[in-house]
Amino acid sequence: MIVIRGGTVVSATGAAPADVVIDGERISALLAPGSLLATDAAGRADRIIEADGMYVLPGGVDVHVHLQLEMTPDATSADDFTTGTTAAAWGGTTTVIDFAGQQVGMAVGDAIEARHGEADGRCVVDYGFHLAMGDVHPQSLLDLGAAIDDGISSCKLFMAYPGVWYSDDGQILDAMFRAKDLGAMVMMHAENGIAIDVLRRRAGEAAALDPASLAPAMHGRTRPAVLEAEAVNRAVALAEVAEAPLYIVHLSSAEALEAVASARHDGRNVFAETCPQYLHLSFEEHLDQHGIDGLRHICSPPLRSQQGHDDLWRGLRTDQLSVVSTDHCPFCDNEKLLGATDFRDTPNGLGSIEHRMDLLHQGVVADEISLARWVDVCSTTPARLFGMYPRKGVIQPGADADIVLYDPAAQHVLSAETHHMAIDHSAWEGMAITGQVRTVLSRGSVVIDDRTFVGRAGHGQFVRRGLSELLV
Amino acid sequence: MIVIRGGTVVSATGAAPADVVIDGERISALLAPGSLLATDAAGRADRIIEADGMYVLPGGVDVHVHLQLEMTPDATSADDFTTGTTAAAWGGTTTVIDFAGQQVGMAVGDAIEARHGEADGRCVVDYGFHLAMGDVHPQSLLDLGAAIDDGISSCKLFMAYPGVWYSDDGQILDAMFRAKDLGAMVMMHAENGIAIDVLRRRAGEAAALDPASLAPAMHGRTRPAVLEAEAVNRAVALAEVAEAPLYIVHLSSAEALEAVASARHDGRNVFAETCPQYLHLSFEEHLDQHGIDGLRHICSPPLRSQQGHDDLWRGLRTDQLSVVSTDHCPFCDNEKLLGATDFRDTPNGLGSIEHRMDLLHQGVVADEISLARWVDVCSTTPARLFGMYPRKGVIQPGADADIVLYDPAAQHVLSAETHHMAIDHSAWEGMAITGQVRTVLSRGSVVIDDRTFVGRAGHGQFVRRGLSELLV
Amino acid sequence: MIVIRGGTVVSATGAAPADVVIDGERISALLAPGSLLATDAAGRADRIIEADGMYVLPGGVDVHVHLQLEMTPDATSADDFTTGTTAAAWGGTTTVIDFAGQQVGMAVGDAIEARHGEADGRCVVDYGFHLAMGDVHPQSLLDLGAAIDDGISSCKLFMAYPGVWYSDDGQILDAMFRAKDLGAMVMMHAENGIAIDVLRRRAGEAAALDPASLAPAMHGRTRPAVLEAEAVNRAVALAEVAEAPLYIVHLSSAEALEAVASARHDGRNVFAETCPQYLHLSFEEHLDQHGIDGLRHICSPPLRSQQGHDDLWRGLRTDQLSVVSTDHCPFCDNEKLLGATDFRDTPNGLGSIEHRMDLLHQGVVADEISLARWVDVCSTTPARLFGMYPRKGVIQPGADADIVLYDPAAQHVLSAETHHMAIDHSAWEGMAITGQVRTVLSRGSVVIDDRTFVGRAGHGQFVRRGLSELLV
Amino acid sequence: MIVIRGGTVVSATGAAPADVVIDGERISALLAPGSLLATDAAGRADRIIEADGMYVLPGGVDVHVHLQLEMTPDATSADDFTTGTTAAAWGGTTTVIDFAGQQVGMAVGDAIEARHGEADGRCVVDYGFHLAMGDVHPQSLLDLGAAIDDGISSCKLFMAYPGVWYSDDGQILDAMFRAKDLGAMVMMHAENGIAIDVLRRRAGEAAALDPASLAPAMHGRTRPAVLEAEAVNRAVALAEVAEAPLYIVHLSSAEALEAVASARHDGRNVFAETCPQYLHLSFEEHLDQHGIDGLRHICSPPLRSQQGHDDLWRGLRTDQLSVVSTDHCPFCDNEKLLGATDFRDTPNGLGSIEHRMDLLHQGVVADEISLARWVDVCSTTPARLFGMYPRKGVIQPGADADIVLYDPAAQHVLSAETHHMAIDHSAWEGMAITGQVRTVLSRGSVVIDDRTFVGRAGHGQFVRRGLSELLV
Repeated sequence: MIVIRGGTVVSATGAAPADVVIDGERISALLAPGSLLATDAAGRADRIIEADGMYVLPGGVDVHVHLQLEMTPDATSADDFTTGTTAAAWGGTTTVIDFAGQQVGMAVGDAIEARHGEADGRCVVDYGFHLAMGDVHPQSLLDLGAAIDDGISSCKLFMAYPGVWYSDDGQILDAMFRAKDLGAMVMMHAENGIAIDVLRRRAGEAAALDPASLAPAMHGRTRPAVLEAEAVNRAVALAEVAEAPLYIVHLSSAEALEAVASARHDGRNVFAETCPQYLHLSFEEHLDQHGIDGLRHICSPPLRSQQGHDDLWRGLRTDQLSVVSTDHCPFCDNEKLLGATDFRDTPNGLGSIEHRMDLLHQGVVADEISLARWVDVCSTTPARLFGMYPRKGVIQPGADADIVLYDPAAQHVLSAETHHMAIDHSAWEGMAITGQVRTVLSRGSVVIDDRTFVGRAGHGQFVRRGLSELLV
Repeated sequence: MIVIRGGTVVSATGAAPADVVIDGERISALLAPGSLLATDAAGRADRIIEADGMYVLPGGVDVHVHLQLEMTPDATSADDFTTGTTAAAWGGTTTVIDFAGQQVGMAVGDAIEARHGEADGRCVVDYGFHLAMGDVHPQSLLDLGAAIDDGISSCKLFMAYPGVWYSDDGQILDAMFRAKDLGAMVMMHAENGIAIDVLRRRAGEAAALDPASLAPAMHGRTRPAVLEAEAVNRAVALAEVAEAPLYIVHLSSAEALEAVASARHDGRNVFAETCPQYLHLSFEEHLDQHGIDGLRHICSPPLRSQQGHDDLWRGLRTDQLSVVSTDHCPFCDNEKLLGATDFRDTPNGLGSIEHRMDLLHQGVVADEISLARWVDVCSTTPARLFGMYPRKGVIQPGADADIVLYDPAAQHVLSAETHHMAIDHSAWEGMAITGQVRTVLSRGSVVIDDRTFVGRAGHGQFVRRGLSELLV
Repeated sequence: MIVIRGGTVVSATGAAPADVVIDGERISALLAPGSLLATDAAGRADRIIEADGMYVLPGGVDVHVHLQLEMTPDATSADDFTTGTTAAAWGGTTTVIDFAGQQVGMAVGDAIEARHGEADGRCVVDYGFHLAMGDVHPQSLLDLGAAIDDGISSCKLFMAYPGVWYSDDGQILDAMFRAKDLGAMVMMHAENGIAIDVLRRRAGEAAALDPASLAPAMHGRTRPAVLEAEAVNRAVALAEVAEAPLYIVHLSSAEALEAVASARHDGRNVFAETCPQYLHLSFEEHLDQHGIDGLRHICSPPLRSQQGHDDLWRGLRTDQLSVVSTDHCPFCDNEKLLGATDFRDTPNGLGSIEHRMDLLHQGVVADEISLARWVDVCSTTPARLFGMYPRKGVIQPGADADIVLYDPAAQHVLSAETHHMAIDHSAWEGMAITGQVRTVLSRGSVVIDDRTFVGRAGHGQFVRRGLSELLV
Repeated sequence: MIVIRGGTVVSATGAAPADVVIDGERISALLAPGSLLATDAAGRADRIIEADGMYVLPGGVDVHVHLQLEMTPDATSADDFTTGTTAAAWGGTTTVIDFAGQQVGMAVGDAIEARHGEADGRCVVDYGFHLAMGDVHPQSLLDLGAAIDDGISSCKLFMAYPGVWYSDDGQILDAMFRAKDLGAMVMMHAENGIAIDVLRRRAGEAAALDPASLAPAMHGRTRPAVLEAEAVNRAVALAEVAEAPLYIVHLSSAEALEAVASARHDGRNVFAETCPQYLHLSFEEHLDQHGIDGLRHICSPPLRSQQGHDDLWRGLRTDQLSVVSTDHCPFCDNEKLLGATDFRDTPNGLGSIEHRMDLLHQGVVADEISLARWVDVCSTTPARLFGMYPRKGVIQPGADADIVLYDPAAQHVLSAETHHMAIDHSAWEGMAITGQVRTVLSRGSVVIDDRTFVGRAGHGQFVRRGLSELLV
């Protein structure tokens, strides 16, 4: 039995002092500090973790990561399931959801089995999978039922990346009808990839006259926000036809937010996540810079103008945005430099799996969101949305003992020098942070102990998820 | 020590089995059922309340009631602080907020003292006060500071009732500037009373030709939704000028909801409550009926068209509406009949203090809102919004032991025959209900014990409230 | 010289008495009745047409007709260029714009030449062509320049009809970039054809269990308004990327109107037409009927619910909708009956070319639009939008003498018995009309003389159009 | 008989060459240049005015001017009816509408008679009156009927200026019901004057600590756009209750525009004008400057931020704004300086009566609006909206011969040195203008002859106006 004593337990609705008792893998009690039962519990405890001055948080839930993703034969995302979940743990995230990718010609079951093979025994914290469907056809939709039975209750589709992951509107609609029948969540990469490819082709054509048309900034200019908003609107319309729930991944722009807000205003089962990079980093600051800094910050959707940051923070505050995930998918410099003369050859993605809780805590410090909302968007709502609540996302008896002790007053600086992600640079280099994870427990086991890693690959288990709790 | 054992604790984010331990007036522990500590606790308990099959809820918080309100010399609202809080307890509400009314010419401090005199020693459950300001001037605004210090952290203004409670836009703006400085919440009765009075006068003028122009239906027609929406929009604009927080009381129409939704979409500190009558009862069904049924259902704002109900439920679901309160203010038939030949002579108000939890549970049954959202809008959010959290509105160690055992499967029918409000009819007569309160604790004392009243007047204490937790 | 004397000339801004003098093909003067010059003119006139009690209107401009359109090998639209333009003249329309259809594999120039071949020498009133592009590729876009030089300054694309006329978003965007460079108007059939095809396939699949799933009503149900609105929104987004002007054809639903209104609110070069069938006929009344009535009313987009009619009239009033055209494309009963057991086999289209002015005049009678707005949406704005103003669409010196004498008080009934379209039934059978065309001039020649046809095939000339006058 | 030969006649729908024949006070013919009738007319003409290279425009209609307005005993607007209408003529405006002001305690009929006494025999061009009601009560509303019979078909109310012109919402609603019955247009000064007075009082209170709180910039800061938008929204709501038409005067901000646009989107009889100062001048450039420049630019509503200019131009383009008037109400420097130490003592108003056509032509030059739209908002629509069409606002047989020859290529600079308004400075000093009025006719008489004034006081006649042509 472990007792966490003296801290302030923060939930999605507020903060209050309480001692937390852990029995095995689960939380067995919340106790008033100093109460008789608290004394009892302390007496029986194998270990008492003193948490004075600390927030005691439900472990973070990052529902969008890409570990060990072979994007092209030349570029595989830098973190494998061990380094990625280690970094997650360092950052206070105790559950990640990655993707089993069904590519064209591949059976759904094979894709899932393959991904299990890559993750099994290698994770430091718990993990789940979404199914990424790249080949929607009657058989793959049929197989979706088995995936759900196996705890993979959400399915991602792509309106971008024609020829690779792209589904056309007919495939999307077919998949949505199926998801509706199964109660599964449809996740959507919402960018109009067909139109974007025209802009990319035109950028290439323009290069003869103007080499700047292939600079990193053009990654942003060829993926304008209006084409993200358009895709969101279209996905919402298709979901309305099929009466299916919809979750927009990595929403990046005020324009797209407006499309989500409008659907939510109408009471639809439409949800969206944003990512820390869209809240903190901008086109002007990074993508519009020449050279490696621009390349390092190529991700899709692209970093947007600074102007939109306020809108996204407001969206988080008002529940137009439900979740913050990372879309963690970093590549090392040698891979990023593949696009040195043509941005189109750069593998897309940033690494943030370790920094999500910290980066969002800056919003608390800056009064953009409340303390409770921080926990809500980083832990409670993702768990509820993706069928893991009340096992994950909350500190209460019966829940998994995924717990983070967070020191709100600590000061540190993000840097490739100090991070634990397997990447040779940081998209966040030099950013000053208030607040820091000190201790992390995963299913009752201490993984980070006062900033020492004591976890082990293989402790993390696959989470069989149920259906979403947030549909009406 | 009391242990509530075997129930399902419902919070604003979900439900899970847990045993609840109460030590004195407060909750001291939440325990995993069957755990070692649970056995310990049961062993030490003075009383064990078995809650199998029951929801264990944080006691309801009704932030808008009018007990013992002398509306005119001829009409005083039927429930006094004892009958009203008794009925509240029967209905699972363990905290009510009433109003200290500062009428024209009255000092704020005197108004508060007088109201304390009426409530003190007479309440069965805890209670608080808002200040209702009917005479905004420099001195009364100065006195608002002392009121806040005394735990009355919210101030209600009226855009309706010229000559009685009405404040003009200048008084409202002055009060909002003051509230902004103090951090107080401004509550607003948002109907354009000046315009409504023209419509009422015209109804009177038309009576010579058409007596129906003074029938109960005209109460609704002279208070059209557009004049509620207008007032909401105006209040939002004035609050924007003063940068003050705003809470719209008894929002009744889809039109007004749209004005609130727009402000919330913009990230403003604007909140609204609706009441069960606007979710369940309609103009067509009641107000447009001749005779006593129409008169009994005269309240302000008036019952609206059935068509708008879906919008209000959607508003609750999407957090456009934050709270459900009752605006409990019932009058007996002899008072209602004062308006038998002229609706304008009817005292306005319905009685629902006893039925709020039940009436909203019907929304859970009908899938309009989730179980968690039911607790959220009836208990957690009102407590957070009005500075009582985490003492009220949540079941966790340290919170007041205000707890309701609710049987979700019970069936009963609302009726004046069986209700506990001091009123000789029911606005809800004959309505079939799924779910029922069985046992209620207030600050650790059992008040309703398996549907027997065991409370006492004087147990209920005045709650000194802090500032709102929900402002950004 | 012809003088039209004693009538009330109606323009897009109002009505006033004036005599109109025609010299050859053009209007040479507007004169104050009874003035010295009016006396002079009457003295010199070869013919005086008395117009007392008549509106004197600029000839109608119908910018969307399909004459002699071979839709499938089994179905060709009923009117050829002679019968179609004869019926147009009977209805007060003196300019029609049809389409030169570039099908897959066809050169743009060949398509135009072929269409010229079909129309040349056969038209009773003037006509023009849009280019309908079914095969967008670099060469066809190059050829668009020559088409514009030849007076075909607008290009229609299709988001519907995959495999036939459909362009994907990339083709659309490429075409829009080209149109932007050329100043050409992009016209769009805005329905999500890919999604619609899924719904049609599902209707077919459902037929095994429920034959009603292939009834005419399913034509409407498989083309829901949300998929029209989606397509409008997408077209607007693509036009924003390319900075191209956009004209939505045959807008049918309140939902799609909202998408247009939003773009126009933002000041975009976005325009839309609706058609009389979407203002007067409904799903409930016709499409949802079994048998031949349903089949006769199959057109795309489908007839919508009666509820939306008010919105479309409001859209016309407020200039959210700029134009009313007919989308005239009728098929005889033997062709309509091809879909007797499967709605998907019915050729889509209605015939209204003869009734547009009458049908819109009913809106004047019913106070939906003003007299001036009637002329505006039926004549002036279409001429301005499509590069024919001030030659067409206005009565002023220098304009083509395309003039209609309209008796606003006449009463008649629409019927296949009496109409002049080459179709064996009427979508408008039995509809009572107030107002009637009495006399029509085309380029100075009388075509309908007091309800006697005196025109001739071959009088009508091809109108080489310039660029739109309404772009900013 | 006068013939204007060789020019390009511009209407609200476009431009075309035509000769204009004037017989007495009215236009008797429009002729194709070079036609037989044109030769006839030229032969008979008393005078031929050559207009090669000129636009021939319908005379401007400025529906909002304040000549000889005694604002306070110390401040009377600078232009009397002679200098004001002279300046109007110089600027191409041939009809102005001023106000008969019914102040508190004054009978409507007396107010009108008094204003007739001031204008009669002193005007150079035609003029009309609106009724400005400062004292709404049953008798004044009764008297509104007689005013309409006398050609004063519009009534202005004020939501600003408490204690002077202000009407409360009840008075407004009463007046709107009456206007609805009479078919009269309700004009509204839409600013929340009650709230503004609080802000002005607070500015005064703050002056003890910070003298800048009484600088001209505070005129803007105490009249924020949100309080204009609020008032527009409220006026729209009241008009909805009464089903009355509404015309918002001097709309100045994007926020207020949005409220108008929303009402117009809904198809309501709601209209708005803006003024040149809100399109061209800004808070930053002028009001936020210390000293006389700030004081000179004090008007109500105040100049707004530069940022909003684009929105207002877009509003003009999209018909969200229907009219441009001047709100001409200038004061000389000695009067403006009354507010040297306290902005509240400055009489509000600018002088622009002479420059409206020029200032809006800059929008044509800059492609903000089309040539046709220029004529529409400056002449045609104001005439239609206020019951003067087709006598005013259009060049066609039967219309008053109010005609302007405008040289679109001329260059000049606005300056107090050269203007003809009776004011010792110019709000527009130094502004470079493309385009200039050369010759002006009023009811057939030349008033400005190739930039020489040849008019006379007393030529201008009172225009008895009918009801608005633009209501549905």
